[in-house]
Amino acid sequence: MKSGHRKRLLIQEVAPRDGFQIEPIFVPTELKIELINALGRTGLAKIEVTSFTSPKAIPALADAEQVMREIVRSAGVEYCALVPNVHGAERALACRVDEINLVVSASESHNYANVCMTCDDSLAQLAKITAFVGNQAHINASLSTAFGCPFEGEIPPARVTRLVGSLFDMGISRVALCDTTGMANPTQVMELCELVLARWPTVQFAAHFRNTRGMGLANVLAALAVGIERFDASLGGLGGCPFAPGASGNICTEDLVHMLESMGYSTGIDLEALLACASTIPQLVGHSVPGQVLRAGPATRRFPMPQYSVEQQQSAVGSQRRAHH
Amino acid sequence: MKSGHRKRLLIQEVAPRDGFQIEPIFVPTELKIELINALGRTGLAKIEVTSFTSPKAIPALADAEQVMREIVRSAGVEYCALVPNVHGAERALACRVDEINLVVSASESHNYANVCMTCDDSLAQLAKITAFVGNQAHINASLSTAFGCPFEGEIPPARVTRLVGSLFDMGISRVALCDTTGMANPTQVMELCELVLARWPTVQFAAHFRNTRGMGLANVLAALAVGIERFDASLGGLGGCPFAPGASGNICTEDLVHMLESMGYSTGIDLEALLACASTIPQLVGHSVPGQVLRAGPATRRFPMPQYSVEQQQSAVGSQRRAHH
Repeated sequence: MKSGHRKRLLIQEVAPRDGFQIEPIFVPTELKIELINALGRTGLAKIEVTSFTSPKAIPALADAEQVMREIVRSAGVEYCALVPNVHGAERALACRVDEINLVVSASESHNYANVCMTCDDSLAQLAKITAFVGNQAHINASLSTAFGCPFEGEIPPARVTRLVGSLFDMGISRVALCDTTGMANPTQVMELCELVLARWPTVQFAAHFRNTRGMGLANVLAALAVGIERFDASLGGLGGCPFAPGASGNICTEDLVHMLESMGYSTGIDLEALLACASTIPQLVGHSVPGQVLRAGPATRRFPMPQYSVEQQQSAVGSQRRAHH
Repeated sequence: MKSGHRKRLLIQEVAPRDGFQIEPIFVPTELKIELINALGRTGLAKIEVTSFTSPKAIPALADAEQVMREIVRSAGVEYCALVPNVHGAERALACRVDEINLVVSASESHNYANVCMTCDDSLAQLAKITAFVGNQAHINASLSTAFGCPFEGEIPPARVTRLVGSLFDMGISRVALCDTTGMANPTQVMELCELVLARWPTVQFAAHFRNTRGMGLANVLAALAVGIERFDASLGGLGGCPFAPGASGNICTEDLVHMLESMGYSTGIDLEALLACASTIPQLVGHSVPGQVLRAGPATRRFPMPQYSVEQQQSAVGSQRRAHH
């Protein structure tokens, strides 16, 4: 974590899919495209653009084809989409996605709540999609509730490794370990990430943390310390917690990038351009978002010295003014 | 950071002073006392109760004497107060404070903005107070802007160590390194904390972080990693940033305790009792506060499985439902 490294980290934006999908309003297609185009120019490694799900199930992303077809792609950025089944994969490939994102939960109860299937049935589905896609796109598997399930509680690491093993065996070499409802803590993150990184050195692991209980960026630090180099995050921190009204959801992309760059890492991202994108979010979704750096400005921001009148100064001598520390 | 340690960490609550002082409303004295009494029973190591400043300068804490005299003290908890000068120390000692908290900034401009003095004049003032107090109470010095100044920017570590050296030379053996406006990043925290811990092994260092840019708990993790064992925090995250309206201020005590206990550390704190205290804060101050665990519940909270109708289940088969990961 020492400065001077400028080690390169990869940041993957999920707001257009994971953020917008739970919003009650429909963000107009042309505004989605405009946002994704602007995001593509900031230096992000990957953008999750949309989801090829049934428009009935997720009306907010009913414009998946149009968005994926009409965005202007930036070189070096991967444009991916979530896909629930072979039909979704077909739709996604027709729009030339770079990566297809598949989902399975580490816990049976969350998998059932999410997709009404057992984990084994989901794995069979993932194998079918993977076989169908072949080498037409990269495949990423997002392993939900890898750090805890809101229904079942703790997930034994052995269960996570069994699932990663199954994904690896079906030829999936990109896996995101997802803290779906913000239950992960830094000790656990270090232990689980260390375990999977050691066992599958050829798999490209990413971490997907949520700030539901305030530990999001601390968990990033923990994952970094053991070698994770890819992180999902959401502009403005968009994407609430489905169980706790008012609680934060995804970690905030601009806060993450600000922290990593301050620490001496290289994200390849233009923070000012990213903040400009983030500043449009409240208007797009019609409510404020939890991101902090947009409110406070980057740590490099300088404020003017407060000006005191002579009277104020005299009354302040003897340090009777309020003390901030 | 591995589990199993159950290493003991000390948590120091600052909301009654650092939180309330910037609130535009006056929290009634009896409610302050009730809150501090309840906090004293949670297992906190220290509570900053009030400030013996001029009531004109900080009307919110004009009841310093009454609060300090009427609280019911719990065994094992230190009750401290901020003191700006010898007169304040006299008032504080008359109320039998356990610790007197003094403040000096690491940057000239912030020190002037805060107390209208040069840093050298502040150090002279601190020496006078320290000599006056003698062994009637512990003395803590809070070193503001130790990780960056909102007016000047970066603070060279050599400047911080020079100031810590001056404090140590005047007999002060408790020092809080304060990130006054949330500019610290984890790399910097590790470097600076490592430096002072190595140079002054007999000084009891604490860290005071703010979440102004979302890095508060990540900075705690960094400080922990190099051996800091005492942390200031504020119930509910009370205590905004004086420069950035809407930005978070102090790190939130219950979120901090929740993280540390989840990680396997021992804080000695009853989280449920602390959450009960935190739940009273919005009503006391008349606005919501940034704490996350109060909204989402601890990570140990279990939610009931969602119930689906047969129709919903059928339409969901084929995993057309929204996917959360």
